[in-house]
Amino acid sequence: MIDRGALTQDLKDLAPIGALPEGGVTRLAFSPQEAELHRIVGSKLRELGGEVRRDAVGNLIARWPGQDDSLPPVACGSHLDSVPQGGRFDGVAGVVAALAAIRAIRERGIVTRHPLEVIAFVSEESSRFGVATLGSKIMAGLIDPEQYLDLKDAAGITLREALESSGADLAALKGAARRPGELKAFLELHIEQGRVLEERGKKIGIVTAIAAPTRWQITIEGRADHSGATPMGLRRDALAAAAELILAVEQWGRQEAAHQSVATVGVLTVEPGAMNVIPGRVKLGVDIRGIAADSIQRVVEGISRALKEICQRREVSAQVQELSAEKPVPLNPSVTGCIEAVCRELSLPYLFMPSGAGHDAMNMARIAPTGLIFIPCEGGISHNPREKAAVQDIALGAEVLLRTLLRLAGDNWGGEEQC
Amino acid sequence: MIDRGALTQDLKDLAPIGALPEGGVTRLAFSPQEAELHRIVGSKLRELGGEVRRDAVGNLIARWPGQDDSLPPVACGSHLDSVPQGGRFDGVAGVVAALAAIRAIRERGIVTRHPLEVIAFVSEESSRFGVATLGSKIMAGLIDPEQYLDLKDAAGITLREALESSGADLAALKGAARRPGELKAFLELHIEQGRVLEERGKKIGIVTAIAAPTRWQITIEGRADHSGATPMGLRRDALAAAAELILAVEQWGRQEAAHQSVATVGVLTVEPGAMNVIPGRVKLGVDIRGIAADSIQRVVEGISRALKEICQRREVSAQVQELSAEKPVPLNPSVTGCIEAVCRELSLPYLFMPSGAGHDAMNMARIAPTGLIFIPCEGGISHNPREKAAVQDIALGAEVLLRTLLRLAGDNWGGEEQC
Repeated sequence: MIDRGALTQDLKDLAPIGALPEGGVTRLAFSPQEAELHRIVGSKLRELGGEVRRDAVGNLIARWPGQDDSLPPVACGSHLDSVPQGGRFDGVAGVVAALAAIRAIRERGIVTRHPLEVIAFVSEESSRFGVATLGSKIMAGLIDPEQYLDLKDAAGITLREALESSGADLAALKGAARRPGELKAFLELHIEQGRVLEERGKKIGIVTAIAAPTRWQITIEGRADHSGATPMGLRRDALAAAAELILAVEQWGRQEAAHQSVATVGVLTVEPGAMNVIPGRVKLGVDIRGIAADSIQRVVEGISRALKEICQRREVSAQVQELSAEKPVPLNPSVTGCIEAVCRELSLPYLFMPSGAGHDAMNMARIAPTGLIFIPCEGGISHNPREKAAVQDIALGAEVLLRTLLRLAGDNWGGEEQC
Repeated sequence: MIDRGALTQDLKDLAPIGALPEGGVTRLAFSPQEAELHRIVGSKLRELGGEVRRDAVGNLIARWPGQDDSLPPVACGSHLDSVPQGGRFDGVAGVVAALAAIRAIRERGIVTRHPLEVIAFVSEESSRFGVATLGSKIMAGLIDPEQYLDLKDAAGITLREALESSGADLAALKGAARRPGELKAFLELHIEQGRVLEERGKKIGIVTAIAAPTRWQITIEGRADHSGATPMGLRRDALAAAAELILAVEQWGRQEAAHQSVATVGVLTVEPGAMNVIPGRVKLGVDIRGIAADSIQRVVEGISRALKEICQRREVSAQVQELSAEKPVPLNPSVTGCIEAVCRELSLPYLFMPSGAGHDAMNMARIAPTGLIFIPCEGGISHNPREKAAVQDIALGAEVLLRTLLRLAGDNWGGEEQC
């Protein structure tokens, strides 16, 4: 039912925006590039008969009436912005899949019982202002936008200025929040940004929960000494202590792997950082994610105990600064079950999985029963010019999205929702 | 016998040269600051009756005739240059101790059987041109100076230009090399630059051998993946692999501690180095030192085996670039024994120990029986504005230097050398 040719054309139409000569795209939040993508998508949505509007922060919302237009709409969508030098599928895949699903519905002349919506969120990436999923956070009423307006990007431009120049309605920002229950459901399709589907030979990942990171910056203080003049027994090597911590972080991640928790040290700096000086200070960043609060807690406690033991044994000290400690967001089991039913119907190899990364769906889940559909991306590479999702995989995902939308909204044959 | 007041005055006279407002001193090789220190010391040596000259590269050599002036001289000395923002005792302590020893000899009217020499070497620190102990390497005939003349400092000045502006005689550089046997012995006093003497409550370290570093730069290649989206089982984390290597380096250093070998990772960088990305590449620097070749070899082989095993098990790859692999330099047992006899005579708490750091003495050891005397420095801190050696410790060291000189050169009472 999905028109793969039209989907390919949609991807082609969006590809040049913010494209870099060296490959990849830069489409920062509230940039002219993001605005241009919204303009193109808005025009495509209008061509498909949608009633298109922008909310106060700039989220694009297109609506198709239902047979009973008083019913809450079933919505789907994703974002169009990118990280600097990012790929052209992160976010975009979900928006073109939504376009493709609506196109299929319109071409068959289907009018669903519930109204339908396509949403393209603004500012999903945190790259510019340090806040991720800003558009959906505002739509879900999760933050007070006023408190973020003074954030500055790398060039010193404030969020307030960026919003003003993008045509946002600053006075009405709070009004962009939608009520819980205003939508019957929300669906997002997104590239996996990992290698699980590829490694396991699956076409669809049905996300059960979205992990939220607990993040620490840890500073280990030992003692900088001459590497030649200090016998092993007199050392307080901050890097050797950090090495033990790195392995403890990994071990606790592995220990809780069955509960789908992960733990990573991705950042580490050594001071003074000279070949002939024993490291006196090491700063490292720990990122812990999971979808089961008790599992996350065991990882947090395990790593904390390990750090304490390492410090005592090695006579080094450590400071732990918590950068974030968010809670995982479970997705709606009925919606998830509905996606599964569609995968079975299509005989598609699928997998239940957590999402380690954050998505707009995690915010929408606070105000609507929400589902998140993952499709494979080559080698799991994302946030990178080499990011790539095959058109046939996007089309398969769009097919799943389409059928799930129809089940949730009720098509004009059955007339009743099936999920 | 050492005149502590005169020694204190010598330190005071040298202190202002290259002193920084924020503390510490900068007296780079072949800089006006180094030249000024040589000028002041040269004038002090002349006041003590020395016949003072500079060799072609700028090493300062003062000579006092012996009773039998045809005999080879007994020499002592150290260097006067510093690292940027260094301390004012590294090198200087050895030169003022030599001054103090000669002063004591002259004040008592002693004429030794062998002639005496004080040498202040140029360019001991590698900070400016990347080559350490340049002055003593040239004096010991260990390098062909021509091959180093195009080296550039951070400002782009070549060694040739620096030598020319310091008044060196470029055409005669090779002629600065002295023959093996030309000196009866060479003695250097130096601050320890470590914490062994302080921790063990000793006043004198008698160096048995000077360790030379084996240095590697190791690059570990894993795979950069999203930290949230990649389960523990699918990871090839370059930093976790590096952590195991760091601990293997430490373990092999500890295992060979009885042979006085040490092994250190002092430098480490992570790529891409983001909180939410599993490290794909880690570069680290390994520094291995020892005074026993077989022990160093065991450390080298142990670490190499560990790296291979880690790479196989974790499916990461590693490249090892050898930056240096020098051989340890044993010091002369008779000279060392002579220093010990003096310590016993003075009832000074002493210790036999290796030097982990390189010194001019390691080059002089190739052409003359050589001894190296360590004195404590506060907290082992060196190459740092906080570097500090107590005047009484320098004076005690100078006393040991004086008595060892007399034993080696034969004083005018005994007439015969005692060591």
